Amino acid sequence: MIGRQVAVIGSHDDSRFLNEAREIGRHIARRHWVLVCGGRGGIMEAASKGAAEEGGIVVGILPGNDFSDANPYLSAAVASGIGFARNSMNVLSGDVIVAIGGKTGTMSELSYAFQYGKPIIICSFAGGWSAAFADIALREDARSLIHTAATVNEATGMLDALLGGETARR
Amino acid sequence: MIGRQVAVIGSHDDSRFLNEAREIGRHIARRHWVLVCGGRGGIMEAASKGAAEEGGIVVGILPGNDFSDANPYLSAAVASGIGFARNSMNVLSGDVIVAIGGKTGTMSELSYAFQYGKPIIICSFAGGWSAAFADIALREDARSLIHTAATVNEATGMLDALLGGETARR
Amino acid sequence: MIGRQVAVIGSHDDSRFLNEAREIGRHIARRHWVLVCGGRGGIMEAASKGAAEEGGIVVGILPGNDFSDANPYLSAAVASGIGFARNSMNVLSGDVIVAIGGKTGTMSELSYAFQYGKPIIICSFAGGWSAAFADIALREDARSLIHTAATVNEATGMLDALLGGETARR
Amino acid sequence: MIGRQVAVIGSHDDSRFLNEAREIGRHIARRHWVLVCGGRGGIMEAASKGAAEEGGIVVGILPGNDFSDANPYLSAAVASGIGFARNSMNVLSGDVIVAIGGKTGTMSELSYAFQYGKPIIICSFAGGWSAAFADIALREDARSLIHTAATVNEATGMLDALLGGETARR
Repeated sequence: MIGRQVAVIGSHDDSRFLNEAREIGRHIARRHWVLVCGGRGGIMEAASKGAAEEGGIVVGILPGNDFSDANPYLSAAVASGIGFARNSMNVLSGDVIVAIGGKTGTMSELSYAFQYGKPIIICSFAGGWSAAFADIALREDARSLIHTAATVNEATGMLDALLGGETARR
Repeated sequence: MIGRQVAVIGSHDDSRFLNEAREIGRHIARRHWVLVCGGRGGIMEAASKGAAEEGGIVVGILPGNDFSDANPYLSAAVASGIGFARNSMNVLSGDVIVAIGGKTGTMSELSYAFQYGKPIIICSFAGGWSAAFADIALREDARSLIHTAATVNEATGMLDALLGGETARR
Repeated sequence: MIGRQVAVIGSHDDSRFLNEAREIGRHIARRHWVLVCGGRGGIMEAASKGAAEEGGIVVGILPGNDFSDANPYLSAAVASGIGFARNSMNVLSGDVIVAIGGKTGTMSELSYAFQYGKPIIICSFAGGWSAAFADIALREDARSLIHTAATVNEATGMLDALLGGETARR
Repeated sequence: MIGRQVAVIGSHDDSRFLNEAREIGRHIARRHWVLVCGGRGGIMEAASKGAAEEGGIVVGILPGNDFSDANPYLSAAVASGIGFARNSMNVLSGDVIVAIGGKTGTMSELSYAFQYGKPIIICSFAGGWSAAFADIALREDARSLIHTAATVNEATGMLDALLGGETARR
């Protein structure tokens, strides 16, 4: 059985909240969940680094045709070759989505995640477009999908609550 | 030379603002621009209907493997077979994007459009997720890309201003 | 109702059989079918030119993010942005596929078309990878899908036989 | 640095040559290369099983929106949601491609791989559409890309020759 997978989304050029992203990556690996991300730098790299430090499996789904923009902490990379249309599969590949800050790329991923009915943890402490997304989504009947975490501990606690008791996908 | 193309985005199950979408579709066809849309019902169908009434060309880019969810006003349909990852190409295929209301699908398209640097006309009179997107984007340095239209006339005037003087793509 | 659509596939850098491709494009437009193609030069351009000369609708599904490699005879272009993964949708968007010569791109499209159960007309007079594909496919139980045309007249006759009596998709 | 990745392609419903596929999967894992595949049953499952038995990392890129057709030996799964357009990324994600038998899906992947300039090992002992592809490609100036292996040992030897001396991607 495939284990649980967590998609971490955020900007490739963010230099803030990298420690927080790394902590979340560490937590994911400690729980033996797979970390899925867009494979690039910034938040994705920080989360990948954390997971790699704990010996976890990290899959990066890159927009390009090759591995040139992969961060160095991936266990495996998918060279999607479909550009940012790959944002859809980043979130389809997560059982839960964790958003940390971000801009338009993150916003498209959150839009997809919500449309696909995926549980979403938004790190409100990091602000950015994902925090704005939370405001919008929570006006809709979205309370069952959108969880806002004010701290890293809250985020990892939500992951445990959402995924903890299950050891197999089905 | 390919003529100008306008992408109209909005929800497939919206039953409001259909007259407004139809008027915008009519305007696009009168200007001999191509209407690009997601090919389905609701706002997409209303805009397609308007363009078809004026003899315009309407291309619908469908998410599925076949033509089963195509609206009846398309001149041509693309059966993308890639699901909602096709949202990226809906906006890549427009020289200008017009958003009318909408939900998560529209939000992902607007996120892509902004990321791709496309001029965006948001019909603020229709509210929805696109109006919320405008609020977020306008907080960023986005005034050159985001135009909010309070009426159909404002929207069509903006289209003329953005596309009017140009008769060929390059 | 959407009209019938014919996908013409072949190489972007082929300089042979352009007259034949143009004739087939002309025939498609005369029958009021939509011509779908990959939107680029070579065979695609020649077929597009023929259809445009007869006032037909031509949709080009481009691999890139913009319209820079579009041929000048398209009525409308889709900037897919997904590279050659768009080959799948080229053939999904045709009710019938016509292959003229070609190389690896054409081969991937023929593989998809066969997998999707699309009727395929292979112009055996043009040789190329599509002729080799015909040889392979005809060894399988493919006679209901694969039709080999030794002349342009045979190809257009096969199109008429496959599409002629139907005026609406459903 | 990302390690080397090998894409193994073949049919999801093939019941022959499963031992051979498993042996190749074992070899890939023993070399600490990542195995990339389409994630489903048949040849993909057999190769995945072999790699998993040796503790290797196996990434499956599924066509669908969820994990329902994943084989049980994947370390991680990508739910691409783009159908068989994902065949393009299966081969983009491999430094070398190994083809074992197969039908139309394999043929589209080989067409892509050849177009992308990827080294391809075709297991001629397994026949199928990949053996037919080898015949076609070898008529072209493809000898630098196409390697035909008459046995599993030949196939793994070719992998070693192509990837052996390199420990990092760049």
